[in-house]
Amino acid sequence: MRKSFGAKTMAYPAPVFIIGSYDENGKANAMNAAWGGICSSNPPCISVSIRAQRKTYDNIVEKKAFTVNLPSSEHIAEADYFGMVSGRDVDKFEKTGLTPVKGEFVDAPYIDEFPVAIECRLHQIVEIGVHIQLIGEIVDVKIRQDCLDENGQPDIVKIDPVLFTPEIRHYLKFGVKAADAFSAGKKFME
Amino acid sequence: MRKSFGAKTMAYPAPVFIIGSYDENGKANAMNAAWGGICSSNPPCISVSIRAQRKTYDNIVEKKAFTVNLPSSEHIAEADYFGMVSGRDVDKFEKTGLTPVKGEFVDAPYIDEFPVAIECRLHQIVEIGVHIQLIGEIVDVKIRQDCLDENGQPDIVKIDPVLFTPEIRHYLKFGVKAADAFSAGKKFME
Repeated sequence: MRKSFGAKTMAYPAPVFIIGSYDENGKANAMNAAWGGICSSNPPCISVSIRAQRKTYDNIVEKKAFTVNLPSSEHIAEADYFGMVSGRDVDKFEKTGLTPVKGEFVDAPYIDEFPVAIECRLHQIVEIGVHIQLIGEIVDVKIRQDCLDENGQPDIVKIDPVLFTPEIRHYLKFGVKAADAFSAGKKFME
Repeated sequence: MRKSFGAKTMAYPAPVFIIGSYDENGKANAMNAAWGGICSSNPPCISVSIRAQRKTYDNIVEKKAFTVNLPSSEHIAEADYFGMVSGRDVDKFEKTGLTPVKGEFVDAPYIDEFPVAIECRLHQIVEIGVHIQLIGEIVDVKIRQDCLDENGQPDIVKIDPVLFTPEIRHYLKFGVKAADAFSAGKKFME
């Protein structure tokens, strides 16, 4: 037996993407976007859906660039705050004390305190409905050295990222490993 | 200090979406898609990016419908298998013993054993690169009764969904709550 919830945005997990951008005067802004994800392997692209009235939308269209920053659970309050107020009304970096750093390859700031920063060049704009999808081509992924394992690869426990559960409205930490991908399924192949 | 990984698809979490579809003869297929997510609140839409050579791509274009199914960790091997072989070569439902059930609202099958099934009508097709993004309008979300809490709302612990970490290539369970959304950030507001 199942219960129907109707036409709801209930899919798990949703990411906690903090989008960094500059306005026309070079002022840094950050917003929290739950609607998004990797959308192409080649070119490597990531999408974020943003309402047109957002300051971040104007910034990205102006600069043709943005960053996607992944907070660790340590900064979940800051990440949540980035989704509660508008960069039109307040300087969110000043309020939280977090540090915007100019991207190496694109004209957008990443967040110094967050473990993962993805620099993106605007690739496509897709009108959907109240949200407009901005597809960014990934030009670089930068990960803090203290979040790497002994082989220099990303260590998900050290990164300690968070996910969002729409409708339930919780941020969760990542849990234990369930299986290796491209491996666990071999038991069904002869 | 940060390490640059270049233009890589490294964003966490990625979902484990199992896409259900029928071919022109009504034969059910399922594939594993890690590139996707909710992309619009109104209309409620979810996107999945699929390579054009996939059987699922042909099926969705033909039927203008698909489902997004969320496995619990119990079925992670089946979910992984769905991403390792093609529906052109093998009947994946027969191999795994999972049960396709005709959608209530769309011409696509959902997976009876999985806790969450999202029925989608094809809304838009977006060409990106090697992946084509299929945007589906969500028409219903169906959750197994035994995965609901005492108020009839989805219980994420009972659903026990999984996430994927690209490049690291692990499936992880969801972890403990880090914070309430639209709440933890209030400390930065006067």
